Order: sequence, then C-alpha cells, then structure tokens
Amino acid sequence: MEKVNIAEKLSTFDDHWSPRIIGQLNGQEVKIAKVKGEFVWHDHAEEDEMFLIIKGTLKIEFRNKTVTLNEGEMLVIPKGVEHKPIAVEEVHLLLFEPAGTKHTGKVDHELTQKNKIHL
Amino acid sequence: MEKVNIAEKLSTFDDHWSPRIIGQLNGQEVKIAKVKGEFVWHDHAEEDEMFLIIKGTLKIEFRNKTVTLNEGEMLVIPKGVEHKPIAVEEVHLLLFEPAGTKHTGKVDHELTQKNKIHL
Repeated sequence: MEKVNIAEKLSTFDDHWSPRIIGQLNGQEVKIAKVKGEFVWHDHAEEDEMFLIIKGTLKIEFRNKTVTLNEGEMLVIPKGVEHKPIAVEEVHLLLFEPAGTKHTGKVDHELTQKNKIHL
Repeated sequence: MEKVNIAEKLSTFDDHWSPRIIGQLNGQEVKIAKVKGEFVWHDHAEEDEMFLIIKGTLKIEFRNKTVTLNEGEMLVIPKGVEHKPIAVEEVHLLLFEPAGTKHTGKVDHELTQKNKIHL
C-alpha cells in the first residue's frame, strides 16, 4: 500500500494516447495518459469511462455535441456512447474505468495500445 | 451527460466529513469531501477505497504505519484495512469507491453520515 504522486508518474513517460495503470480497486483501474491530436471514434460496449483533466483542455466530440473539459473538470461517458477525444495542445488526464477496458473499444487502430502498462 | 467542475462543486458546501456524490460509473461512486480534524478508526469490509488529495495534507493512520498524502497524491486502501484519516488543516479530497460504501464502515459514530448527498 504505497501512495502515488500523479505528477511524478506523469513525468516518467512522454508518448501520447498510451495510458498507464497507476491504481487498481474493486475491479476498476486508475490510469494516466498524455494525449495530443485527434483520437479515433469509438465506444466501450460494457464500460462507463471517466475522464479527469490534470492539465490542458480536452475536447470530446459526441455524435450530437462537443464537451470541452478544462483542468479540474471531469466527465463520465456512459457505456455505448460513441466519442472522439481531441487535444489541440498536450493534455494530461486521469481515467477511471473497469479493468481490461481497451482505449479504442472494439476499434482496431494504429493508436490501439497493444499491451497494458503498469507504472 | 454533463461535465463536473470539481472546484465549483467544492465551493457549494463547507461542512466536514460529509462526502458528496459527484459522479457514478460501473457501480462505483466519485465523491468529494472537505475534512478537518480526526476521523474515526474504521475499515470497509468489502470495498477498496481510493483517496485523491485536491488541496491540503491528509495523514492516514494505519495500525502499523502512517501515510501522509499531499495535493496531487492518491492512495488505494484495500478492503478490510483499518484506517483513520487526520487533517490538521482543512483538506479537500476526492474519493472513489463502490456505490453505497459508508464512510465510517460498520462503525456508528456521531460523524457517520445519515443520508447520501448528491451534488
């Protein structure tokens, strides 16, 4: 049972769209990621997903609207809802989602992470 | 599906040791709380619990050690592990735990919250 300093963990990597696992509880995972540019349209059939912005501004496009998240803001995206994150400048974020959730859902894309990374 | 600004939600209340629910996903709840002083020794028999510090310094006493959490630091407390949070000065924190988790576990204390509060 060790504490985790989020900024310190964020300082250990630089690649984009490649979440790292920094905590696990009740079958859920806490992840951090750095993102920049446009991600791919996807949904998570069985998993609700939460974004919490640590630094920067993240736009999340939905089929019927766009939500803009700034530092200290969070959004829960219910399962099955298609979304596409866009970061004009680099964004640091924290994710809560069930263990095993794939970041591109069922979409196989060049950005799809091949293996889990634990920090 | 609306975004949540954590600082804005924190500004809506001042009482201590009374968590507010600001998000729900996958059977889990995201809560915020302001705490000051000593809480009661307790554990959560079936629930892992995560603390993330938004502001201030929180000490968490365990039977065999004390962990000090500063802003931007988090800790997962596994189910069944007794703990006692202590905030010398006011602390703002975010909690992540299964829906229905009682903040004093099975302990009935004057600080025990009687009803859920959603923001």
